[in-house]
Formats: sequence, C-alpha cells, structure tokens
Amino acid sequence: MSESIDNQTPPSGGRGAHVCLTPALLPLFSVEEYIVVVIDVFRATSSICYGIENGAEAIIPVSQVEECAAYREKGLDYLLAAERDGKVVDGFDFGNSPFSYTAEKVAGKTVVLTTTNGTHALHLSRAAKKIVIGSFLNLTALSDWLKTQNDNVLLVCAGWKNNFNLEDTLFAGAVTDQLKTDGYVLDDAALAANDLYQLGKHDINDYLKKTSHGERLKKLGIQKDIDFCLQVDIATAIPVLDGERLVKLQQ
Amino acid sequence: MSESIDNQTPPSGGRGAHVCLTPALLPLFSVEEYIVVVIDVFRATSSICYGIENGAEAIIPVSQVEECAAYREKGLDYLLAAERDGKVVDGFDFGNSPFSYTAEKVAGKTVVLTTTNGTHALHLSRAAKKIVIGSFLNLTALSDWLKTQNDNVLLVCAGWKNNFNLEDTLFAGAVTDQLKTDGYVLDDAALAANDLYQLGKHDINDYLKKTSHGERLKKLGIQKDIDFCLQVDIATAIPVLDGERLVKLQQ
Repeated sequence: MSESIDNQTPPSGGRGAHVCLTPALLPLFSVEEYIVVVIDVFRATSSICYGIENGAEAIIPVSQVEECAAYREKGLDYLLAAERDGKVVDGFDFGNSPFSYTAEKVAGKTVVLTTTNGTHALHLSRAAKKIVIGSFLNLTALSDWLKTQNDNVLLVCAGWKNNFNLEDTLFAGAVTDQLKTDGYVLDDAALAANDLYQLGKHDINDYLKKTSHGERLKKLGIQKDIDFCLQVDIATAIPVLDGERLVKLQQ
Repeated sequence: MSESIDNQTPPSGGRGAHVCLTPALLPLFSVEEYIVVVIDVFRATSSICYGIENGAEAIIPVSQVEECAAYREKGLDYLLAAERDGKVVDGFDFGNSPFSYTAEKVAGKTVVLTTTNGTHALHLSRAAKKIVIGSFLNLTALSDWLKTQNDNVLLVCAGWKNNFNLEDTLFAGAVTDQLKTDGYVLDDAALAANDLYQLGKHDINDYLKKTSHGERLKKLGIQKDIDFCLQVDIATAIPVLDGERLVKLQQ
C-alpha cells in the first residue's frame, strides 16, 4: 500500500518497546534512539550473562574462530571460547556451553567468545545509546533496569543466519511482558512476541520443542545447555558493551 | 552461535511451508524452490483477489503513482488506481479500496494498481516457480490449490516498509493452518504465524485492533475497507502472476 506513514521510529510521546526480529531488519530502525538489548538465548547471550554474573572481568564477542585465535597470538592472558558443530575447537579453552562459564573458570578473567549471530547483531547496533545483553537468566533484573531508564528499548533478536527464530522472539516477548505494564508503547513485532510468550511461558522448553532449531540443537547433543539457558532469573548481572568488551553494568 | 546448519532451504524430504515475515528477508530464501504467495491484506492483495474474482481481465501492480500514470500516457484503455493518504489521486479512476473492485467497475478491464509494499514483494519474488496472491477473501481456495501442488510454499508478507506487520503474518498463519494437516514441514516463522492465528482467529478484527498499523488505517478512515478485507472465503479466484500482469489462475 502507499499510505506514507512510518512505523519504525519510536513514539514521540512516551517510551517505545520495539522488537527487531532479525539483524537483517536493523537498518529499518534508528538505533541511535534506543537502548538495544541483544538476544541470542541458545547459547551466546545466556553464556555471557552467566559468565559476567560469575565474575568474568569482561567477555569479548567475535564472529570467527580465527579472530578468537588471534587473541592468543597477542600474548594476552585471555580465555578463548570457540566451537564448531558442538565441539570445542582444538587449542581453545572451551566452547559455548554455559557450563563453561562458572566462577571457577571465569572469575577475574577476560573471555573471548566466538558467536556469529550475536556478534553480527552487536555490530549492527553500534550506534545505540547503550547495548546490553539479555537472556532468560537475567530477565527480571534486565527488565527492572530498563524501566528505570527514560528511553526507548529495542529488543534485537540475533536469530539464525539473519532469519527469524522462535527462542529469541520468545525472550523478547518475556521482556515486553514486563515492560508493557509500565506504559511502553509496543510495535507490531513486540505485540506478536508478547503473544507468543503468553503461549509458551508455562513451559518454554516444551513450547520450543516443535521448532526446527530446537531439533538441530538436540542433535548436537546440547539438550543440557538448552535446559540451562531456559532457567529464569538465576542471575542479576546485566552485561553492557564498553568498547569491544562486555562488562558488568554498574547501577 | 556458530553451528553451521542452514535453515533457509526447504526440507529435502516432503514439502515445506515457510513464512518470510518481510520482503527484507527474501534474500535469505532460495525463492526458485518455492511457489510464492504474496500477502498484503490491508488492502492490496485483498483488492486484487476481489477484482480478479469479479472478472477483471488483469491487474498490473506498480509501486509508484508516476508509473501508474504512465499507463494512461500509453493510450491504453486501463483503469488506473492510485491513492495517497487514503484519498484517490486527482486524475485517477479509483484508489485501493476493495469496494472499487466490483464487477460493475472492473469486469473485462485491466487495472493498474499502485501498491508499494505489494509490488516490492512481487519483484523480489520474481525467480519463484509461480507467484500467486493471497488474502482472507480466497483463503481456502488458495490453500486447497497449494495442497494439490507437489511443491514447497513460501508465504511472503509484504509487511510495512520492509518491517513486520501483524495482519499479513496472521494471514500467513491462516494458510499454514490449512497446510499443516497435509504434512508440510513448518519453519519457525510459520510456527509463530500459526500460533498467532490461533490466538486471533475467533475475531481477527478485534485481535488486530491493538496493532499500530490498525490504528493508523483507522485514522485514514478506511475501517470499512478493513472489515471487508477480513471476510473469509468470499472468493475462489486465485490471482497468478503472468509476466507483469496478475490474471486468474486456470485450474
């Protein structure tokens, strides 16, 4: 249709809670007008939240195993996390399983994490007022902090190779669910994400079982990781981007 | 994450019913492996279905009012449909309201229709095996025909300026609902669209009232058009793209 009204900018009155369903849609949003929440629940942003919660000094997300390896060559004392096809790549410290991000392993350390979809979403969001990291692990802490900010929120689903996925959308709907009671104006994608969350919230694991991606992850033998990533509110730390490093947000 | 599995191609065994939530995501799909259904329920594809049902010889979708005007200069006996901000543009025969596509007005005629989002989706789908047009008006006829084809189906939501909208997604979910009983494999977007349709199907008009786009269309004074576009199965014609013209599919 040709009606010339734009729906991709925040509302002029009040705060908007908008959902960008995949990084491919980010160019449609004026990201500089938002606090961006990057979401990649299986497993990058869950591992990041858990690692920062457990005292990691910083987590540096990179998109390629080669970039990750380059940090070792710099001679710095970083932990390097990279996996392919569900297995830790030879010569790296660990993979993307959240179980690798315990206090014993990461406290006081800087971790370089290889995450294609998550890094892509982060890079495209560079111009945002602030970029924070969300997962079911820190759902309420994140939502509560967002509500204290007088800003529009853009929930960016990392998705799968630029396409839509259900698990990230469901989490966007979970955040929307907490924000909507606080007067945020929702866009269509936020309304849809929230409705999907209503359908799935009583048993998110069961709801996601029907997805193709869930099927694939199961085949990779990481069902334990998935169960872990779907735990709600076991963390209160909010990772925030500072330069190229994700660190704990100081409130 | 870095697991190297692709989810944007149809399944190798059986047929896939996939949903492309906005034209911006079309480059992610191998459109040549699908029958594409273009969806722009408010109001372009509803008007097209109604016009073809009512005996229009052809409907030619164009994206700009100027392109539409150019058809008059060609001296051909076309009906020209163009509107801006909900009003028929001066010098044109009518706008995008489905009420303009009655048998009295369009039977035996060729109509040139200005539709930005719909034309954009059509152009990006050019390489498809076949491109057909869907709306609630021809929901069951379209779904029944798709089921007779031994092909993957890609439901392309025209959306709003390349972003997601709820009304087109809901219709994609309605088609998915008919196809899923016939053994099609659904992708995550089709699963989501279908779940949203389950939530909205008992009163689609009421369900869509909360959307921002619905609000805007209401302000444009086209609530009557919206009501019309949400009528289910009042048509059996399926418009199909033949060159640059949409004509009635001969079964």
